[in-house]
Amino acid sequence: MKQIVLLPGDGIGPEIIREARRVLESVAQAYEHQFCFKEALIGGAAIDATGQPLPPETIEACLTSDAILLGAVGGPKWDSIDSSIRPEKGLLGIRKELNLFANLRPVRVMKPLINESALKPEVLEGVDLLIVRELTGGLYFGQPSERRTVDGEDGVVDTLVYKKSEIKRIVHTAFEAARKRQGRVLSVDKANVLESSRLWRETAIEVGKEYPDVLLDHMLVDNAAMQLIREPKQFDVVVTENLFGDILSDEASMISGSIGLLPSASLNDRGLGLYEPVHGSAPDIAGTNTANPLAAIASAAMLLEHSFGLIEEARTIETAIETALINGYRTNDLASDSKKGITTIEMTDAVIQSI
Amino acid sequence: MKQIVLLPGDGIGPEIIREARRVLESVAQAYEHQFCFKEALIGGAAIDATGQPLPPETIEACLTSDAILLGAVGGPKWDSIDSSIRPEKGLLGIRKELNLFANLRPVRVMKPLINESALKPEVLEGVDLLIVRELTGGLYFGQPSERRTVDGEDGVVDTLVYKKSEIKRIVHTAFEAARKRQGRVLSVDKANVLESSRLWRETAIEVGKEYPDVLLDHMLVDNAAMQLIREPKQFDVVVTENLFGDILSDEASMISGSIGLLPSASLNDRGLGLYEPVHGSAPDIAGTNTANPLAAIASAAMLLEHSFGLIEEARTIETAIETALINGYRTNDLASDSKKGITTIEMTDAVIQSI
Ligand SMILES: CC(C)[C@H](C(=O)O)[C@@H](O)C(=O)O
Ligand SMILES: CC(C)[C@H](C(=O)O)[C@@H](O)C(=O)O
Repeated sequence: MKQIVLLPGDGIGPEIIREARRVLESVAQAYEHQFCFKEALIGGAAIDATGQPLPPETIEACLTSDAILLGAVGGPKWDSIDSSIRPEKGLLGIRKELNLFANLRPVRVMKPLINESALKPEVLEGVDLLIVRELTGGLYFGQPSERRTVDGEDGVVDTLVYKKSEIKRIVHTAFEAARKRQGRVLSVDKANVLESSRLWRETAIEVGKEYPDVLLDHMLVDNAAMQLIREPKQFDVVVTENLFGDILSDEASMISGSIGLLPSASLNDRGLGLYEPVHGSAPDIAGTNTANPLAAIASAAMLLEHSFGLIEEARTIETAIETALINGYRTNDLASDSKKGITTIEMTDAVIQSI
Repeated sequence: MKQIVLLPGDGIGPEIIREARRVLESVAQAYEHQFCFKEALIGGAAIDATGQPLPPETIEACLTSDAILLGAVGGPKWDSIDSSIRPEKGLLGIRKELNLFANLRPVRVMKPLINESALKPEVLEGVDLLIVRELTGGLYFGQPSERRTVDGEDGVVDTLVYKKSEIKRIVHTAFEAARKRQGRVLSVDKANVLESSRLWRETAIEVGKEYPDVLLDHMLVDNAAMQLIREPKQFDVVVTENLFGDILSDEASMISGSIGLLPSASLNDRGLGLYEPVHGSAPDIAGTNTANPLAAIASAAMLLEHSFGLIEEARTIETAIETALINGYRTNDLASDSKKGITTIEMTDAVIQSI
């Protein structure tokens, strides 16, 4: 029996995780699997209950589980507190503790929503890309990261650090993913300025030699930010370091018409994975039963695929999401101004209907 | 008599700078000014002639000039050479030598080109924003930036450094600019992760107190990358650190339909300014008389406004650019597939016509 740890977190987290769980239960029933769920605390909810954003019991529960599904963390309630106990520290902490170095963010265009995007439909048609973001290195974790005197004045320093082995393994992840897709890897860096990017590029070229069947290309991050809008179809797998990946994947979310649809997976090298929607905790609508559960549900589909190898079940959920959208179901974030959206629960029911 | 140093640089640089000069000369004639031009070397052209991307004579010429107009630097010819003498080092070097810390990148939507953008016209209407990018600090210049052993393995480090005084002065630039515009400053950072961003945000708030007439807001860089696409009209002045500004301003260039239109100004605290198109050196079309000269011409307009205080003359150039576009003149980058674009020289003639 597979054990799934649920980390509802803050804001709309608990609502969407509850709905994603319902979908997983309905898949379990339809395909005769047994999933066992265990809830644990993270983020602001964990701070409120225990004084820290990532309690040891949560890490322990995750380490002994088969997969983790997370809602969202953070909110204004915890914004002003000391930075060492911010909710985000829980998210960064769990990534680091579980060594979840490979963040996969697929971006597809949902046909029924193609007119909702700020981009023109003709630019969007056929877009299907995967951003592979390094998640446990770079500026996010480099030391020193501190206030200090610089040339005799008040100043500050952050440090971008990578070990070559860290670059290698994430680039391998990208090449492996490309093999199952269109066979193209684009490595994004800022090699005309940063030494870390030059090592990144060299390493990508080196690793690429082991994949003669996959095409490797390079692009500067500023140009990539432009090309993602200009012609998103040109991309297959995009691999990049932590902070560039953070920026580019949020930008790319606009391609799909809504950030409310996008799932992500964060994997370590032992096959453990944490799955979470790309969107945040949306504290303004928390508890109102109006949040869009689809990104959380799509994250559950990624969980089935990547952690349990249940490809058919994953496809079933993805198709069910698309069917619900084709049938016109829309939560508020997707509804046009004239129509009122359906509730979080109703949207989930619509998905479950076709499972 | 005002002295302008021209730095044609590489690729299409020489062609577009020659055309921008023609426009400046026609303005000088129309308004009875005297501009004197002096050419100097930078980038790959300088490497070829002198062995270094920024010869001392170039720095000397710039320091004794009233303003600088630069074309573009870089190209595949110099891509494989040792990183210490890359063409880009010339650009980074001149920014640092002249202390050009304030990079202004205005993004407006050109009505006649509103249908050329990948974004929908309704998203673009009314967009008029200014990105104020810090240009001489952060990861671009921080030390150490080197290969080194990390935990006993091959690794690399780059350093993001800011002095508080550097943050202060660029934030002041943004507030001053906002006063002449819609009175709103958005400071973009990654304060939920980076210590440097937390100092950035604190400093922005502190400086903001001196501008009670200007509204200050904050946004995380990942969200900003998204919002620039989702609803670009929401922005007035956006101020951010060097690398975030590099990425966001190239992304924002997509709003205007073409990077071939966008000018930039880089200013120091003594009023000296370097003006350059946002686009690169486009080596593939260099020497073919097909490059779009409008970004270089618009940069010349910014030069007249910011370095010489010639506001009317600057507006005249900007209106002439728009008129040329309204009249249907298009270089290849703007022409639809069915029509062949006009030449670089013809486009400039079209602009000069209405001066
Ligand atoms: C909440 C924040 C620390 C996080 C990040 O920057 O990684 C988020 O933006 C993300 O992309 O998952
Ligand atoms: C050429 C490069 C070093 C430069 C930068 O990153 O600043 C360019 O992209 C720019 O934005 O002017």
